[in-house]
Amino acid sequence: MRITDIAVTPVAFRDPPLLNSVGVHEPWALRTIVEVHTDEGISGLGETYGDIGHLDRVRGAAPGLVGLDVHDLNGLRARVADALGGVAGSDRHGLTGPLTAESTVDRVFASFEVATWDIRGKALGRPVSDLLGGAVRDTVPYSAYLFYKWAGHPGDEPDAFGEALDPAGIVAQAEALIDAHGFGSIKLKGGVLEPRQEVEAVLALREAFPDHPLRLDPNAAWTPATSLEVAAALDGVVEYLEDPAPGIDGMAEVAAGAPMPLATNMCVIAFEHLAPAVARGAVQVVLSDHHYWGGLSRSKELAAICRTFGIGLSMHSNSHLGISLAAMTHLAAATPNLNYACDTHYPWNAADDVITTPFTFVDGAVRVPTAPGLGVELDRDALARAAEAYRACGLVQRDDTGYMQQHEPSYERKRPRW
Amino acid sequence: MRITDIAVTPVAFRDPPLLNSVGVHEPWALRTIVEVHTDEGISGLGETYGDIGHLDRVRGAAPGLVGLDVHDLNGLRARVADALGGVAGSDRHGLTGPLTAESTVDRVFASFEVATWDIRGKALGRPVSDLLGGAVRDTVPYSAYLFYKWAGHPGDEPDAFGEALDPAGIVAQAEALIDAHGFGSIKLKGGVLEPRQEVEAVLALREAFPDHPLRLDPNAAWTPATSLEVAAALDGVVEYLEDPAPGIDGMAEVAAGAPMPLATNMCVIAFEHLAPAVARGAVQVVLSDHHYWGGLSRSKELAAICRTFGIGLSMHSNSHLGISLAAMTHLAAATPNLNYACDTHYPWNAADDVITTPFTFVDGAVRVPTAPGLGVELDRDALARAAEAYRACGLVQRDDTGYMQQHEPSYERKRPRW
Ligand SMILES: [Mg+2]
Ligand SMILES: [Mg+2]
Repeated sequence: MRITDIAVTPVAFRDPPLLNSVGVHEPWALRTIVEVHTDEGISGLGETYGDIGHLDRVRGAAPGLVGLDVHDLNGLRARVADALGGVAGSDRHGLTGPLTAESTVDRVFASFEVATWDIRGKALGRPVSDLLGGAVRDTVPYSAYLFYKWAGHPGDEPDAFGEALDPAGIVAQAEALIDAHGFGSIKLKGGVLEPRQEVEAVLALREAFPDHPLRLDPNAAWTPATSLEVAAALDGVVEYLEDPAPGIDGMAEVAAGAPMPLATNMCVIAFEHLAPAVARGAVQVVLSDHHYWGGLSRSKELAAICRTFGIGLSMHSNSHLGISLAAMTHLAAATPNLNYACDTHYPWNAADDVITTPFTFVDGAVRVPTAPGLGVELDRDALARAAEAYRACGLVQRDDTGYMQQHEPSYERKRPRW
Repeated sequence: MRITDIAVTPVAFRDPPLLNSVGVHEPWALRTIVEVHTDEGISGLGETYGDIGHLDRVRGAAPGLVGLDVHDLNGLRARVADALGGVAGSDRHGLTGPLTAESTVDRVFASFEVATWDIRGKALGRPVSDLLGGAVRDTVPYSAYLFYKWAGHPGDEPDAFGEALDPAGIVAQAEALIDAHGFGSIKLKGGVLEPRQEVEAVLALREAFPDHPLRLDPNAAWTPATSLEVAAALDGVVEYLEDPAPGIDGMAEVAAGAPMPLATNMCVIAFEHLAPAVARGAVQVVLSDHHYWGGLSRSKELAAICRTFGIGLSMHSNSHLGISLAAMTHLAAATPNLNYACDTHYPWNAADDVITTPFTFVDGAVRVPTAPGLGVELDRDALARAAEAYRACGLVQRDDTGYMQQHEPSYERKRPRW
């Protein structure tokens, strides 16, 4: 079964003003929908980043894949690597670390690779989780992903989620998300307020939700010294502390003194980072993400590496739609050592999804689709609307810092900040 | 597609008197043929060890697999683990290291896992290499596997291969194997004679075959000090030195001073061994072997680990038949970073193969089968003869040391010996 054509469609969807260590989410989040068509009439879906640099690389690699057999993942990756010519991309919004030439290949490869799993599953009449070795769980738990946020985008009415700029606001947000979706774990995106205030928010969450595992992720906003202070203050409170300090060296310094595991989706984001991180004992949990770890096949390899080196495995998310959530869910279902609830931004963005039946959370979990392939179908009207929104919104590159500076001109990007 | 029945057939086939560091091959080598049947009438083949302990574990686990879907590798491994109840098996012939509970599961799991790939490939009409991510090579190179050997088994006529007990005999054996099969790399099984004599044999090979990559494998017969002497003597002569000294500690000591990479199929034979080996820098090449690394799926994981940690990847062999060679070849074809010619005993044993079309080597390589599944078919008559040979030969457990002692009563098993 050979690839005949690939459609690459950038889309935009509404995003609330969620704060993080480098600024605030713009009103529109960008994403790219990939449709791979074959000579047997079966098509498959993928979803990937929408930033223009990545979009251009995906568009540039797609034509070279025509004629490839959909089983030939080795050939697919080789052709993507050829198309990219050994150049490292960039991730200018800066919430993950710098890319390497290899990890740039993995990002572009992943955009197509997921679609081939969808195709193979459909051809075989089996869900993708079966092709990945079989689901070890029928439902995949996700965490409530909390953000400090403004009431609404400047100039707009307050949004349905409301403001959250202090411990009470964060607890209220958690209550709303858990009421709506039943989440059994909670993650707070930090790096926004002074560390002391974020510790207070986590302690308030602990009081309000005594049995929910908690996490805090300041996106490397702290020095190792500050990180160790926070770690001491949250001893016994969080299941892991995510990217407190920048870099493998910084994380290793924190890990040596922190009482809890350290997790990362910033200092270990490519296979090249694993050996130095293991050698330094820098991280105890890796947040996998098939969008940058080279799709589902290489994410399974990452899982095997974590299992082998005694590293915990959780799952990272960027703002995304339902095709990504489907892929994340199949992968998580078929990964025995994925031993934490996964992260997802989906509740913040699901209203604009481009699939016919958006996902829902029951008891904080997504039921693993049992239909063939990924088990999701494009809503052509919704896709057209989202593609039109992309053209209309005028954004081509996520820029949390620039958007923040439009509204707070004195805002400085700084890492570490405290 | 669900498993309905599994046939487990121990077989024996003739084996020449090949010498190694713990004795000599007995006249019969043992192996087990596994046939997995499904409710859709498609069956798959596997081949595994024949030693009675392992055979009993395979037989014990098989009934519990009935009803499983052939895609469900996670479920298959879990059921095997349940059947084994956390007990570590043993490998009494001692050419690899001690087993762990997990590696015992992987060995038994692999026996069935390969058959499920054969089934899935047949169902889909695709070779197994396609299902493993696609062949990156059409042919898989193997090495000429040389052994010190007696002219024939005691009491028998000399066999067709003849005696090889000195450098001239080893060179003549290499010439014969290369004439017949075209091998482009050479491996000498050492640990038999004094190290000085084995170094001479390797130097004679270098003179006779100036362009063939060479390897020497004494199966941990040497102390680290002796290993370092040999390593110095073979500087620039061998592409790697295989298991010169026992254990991760011993290998690390040698690695610190040896000018060439060290390879192993003795001190790193389970996922648990990788972290300590990496931490110590003990090995630079791992010889993978799907029979004990948990089948083709987990061997792919091992390959990813080697790629990630900068470890070379080669492939190990025990005495085996064509079903194993088919699986090895598909796996090697679909593993981009398998960067050495694979080992195989096949030329020593192919005459008694149980498949309808035994493999041949062209220019030292096996053509990757393109027929669906593994691409091999059982020869029922040959299987019946091999099963009868198993019953008749009276062996149930490989015992190179005991067989040696029958003929040289003063022989002592000793590691390290020099
Ligand atoms: Mg993070
Ligand atoms: Mg060996």
